[in-house]
Amino acid sequence: MIPLDDRGLLLGDGLFETLLAVDGVLVAPGPHLDRMAAGCATLGLPPLDRGEAARVMAAALAGLEATRVAVRLTLTAGSGGRGLDRPDVPAVRLIATAAPAPASQEPADLITSTVRRNDLSPAARLKTLSYIDNVLARAEARGAGVDEALMLNTRGDVACAAAANVFWLWGGRLYTPQLDCGVLAGTMRAQVIAAATGQGLPVVETRSGVAELARADAAFLTNSLIGVRPVRSLDGFSWEPSTLVERLAAAVS
Amino acid sequence: MIPLDDRGLLLGDGLFETLLAVDGVLVAPGPHLDRMAAGCATLGLPPLDRGEAARVMAAALAGLEATRVAVRLTLTAGSGGRGLDRPDVPAVRLIATAAPAPASQEPADLITSTVRRNDLSPAARLKTLSYIDNVLARAEARGAGVDEALMLNTRGDVACAAAANVFWLWGGRLYTPQLDCGVLAGTMRAQVIAAATGQGLPVVETRSGVAELARADAAFLTNSLIGVRPVRSLDGFSWEPSTLVERLAAAVS
Repeated sequence: MIPLDDRGLLLGDGLFETLLAVDGVLVAPGPHLDRMAAGCATLGLPPLDRGEAARVMAAALAGLEATRVAVRLTLTAGSGGRGLDRPDVPAVRLIATAAPAPASQEPADLITSTVRRNDLSPAARLKTLSYIDNVLARAEARGAGVDEALMLNTRGDVACAAAANVFWLWGGRLYTPQLDCGVLAGTMRAQVIAAATGQGLPVVETRSGVAELARADAAFLTNSLIGVRPVRSLDGFSWEPSTLVERLAAAVS
Repeated sequence: MIPLDDRGLLLGDGLFETLLAVDGVLVAPGPHLDRMAAGCATLGLPPLDRGEAARVMAAALAGLEATRVAVRLTLTAGSGGRGLDRPDVPAVRLIATAAPAPASQEPADLITSTVRRNDLSPAARLKTLSYIDNVLARAEARGAGVDEALMLNTRGDVACAAAANVFWLWGGRLYTPQLDCGVLAGTMRAQVIAAATGQGLPVVETRSGVAELARADAAFLTNSLIGVRPVRSLDGFSWEPSTLVERLAAAVS
């Protein structure tokens, strides 16, 4: 339970990470803690207590018997006064919950959301607790009978999916939106870039419109829980399965 | 206390209102409840239970001895699964807290924030729990030694302050950003528009850049707690006190 005056609850003032655990062991927690620590600096919060983060995640994991578990680590700016101003020295809260992770998923059908990603805020490059735009984009996709929403940024460039980074293949190169498009530096995004480079596949971090994605040879989503998930369709236009995407998926699993 | 799986906490999935109470009585709660009810519809949440909202606010008020009290009413999308998707039938939570309201405040010094208001999301016209952009804008203002931040939208138009609507006087007219600039339909904004119109002062809801505000004869902020608060300076350029602003402040207090 969390107090009613917590700024995470009242203002979305905080950060989170979602980590995969397999057989009770967290998969590559380092990059997630690094990212949360960097987020604390950007938000002006005290340095992350990595020991405490490890402890609350271990406690959440201990309560659950499952092969694949999603651990959600949440850091709030703590309790603090009324209104937008934080206390002079915020006393952050770290909490964790755990739930069975989704099994490997079917290729995803997407629509382009009408909700834009706000690349003109530092929060666009962080996993903050202010995630209503992503919730609304996903709900729009579900309402259209598909799995996930593609989000463009305020300039109309491709940014990401509601809960994943996005990649596409075209002309023998792998493309993904550059971080200043308002994109989270996904841990699986980094792994896929490294794997592709290792396989001799050139990677281009790009600022591209949705037309460039739509004409691609193949597309896929990435995050820590799903790894690589192929995109089957976008706005009703379909792709055939791609052996190159399968090879990348295998390389990071 | 609130459970750790609450979507308001985890994802900023919910709404809030801040109401003024004087001598234990809420001031004009109707428009606040109307706005929250409309927000529930926009977010796809069940209809607001106004009776329950009134009960939790009364309970919060009962715990506090003060002439002027700020009551914060918070509605979360409730507990629900893992990830972005809501349960099929969300069981929302309504909670309220109360704190002494700020006394009448000095004229405000403002800077223009680098954090932009995302007018390209439905959330920009709602008081959602995803308020990190406003928290960051306010923190930027405090870091610059001033009181409040002016937020532009993604097109560079004036939108609002971090916790207030904004108005300015120019050439015998009163200007305020139109709602599709990504502006909350403030209850005090509506009162000021009505009061000005009643006094024969033409009101223009506008899409304007910061230069048009900067050249104004006077400017002020509004919200439910502060009523009308004059702006003393913006980005270091100062205004003299305005009797017209004082008259509007008196008309809505």
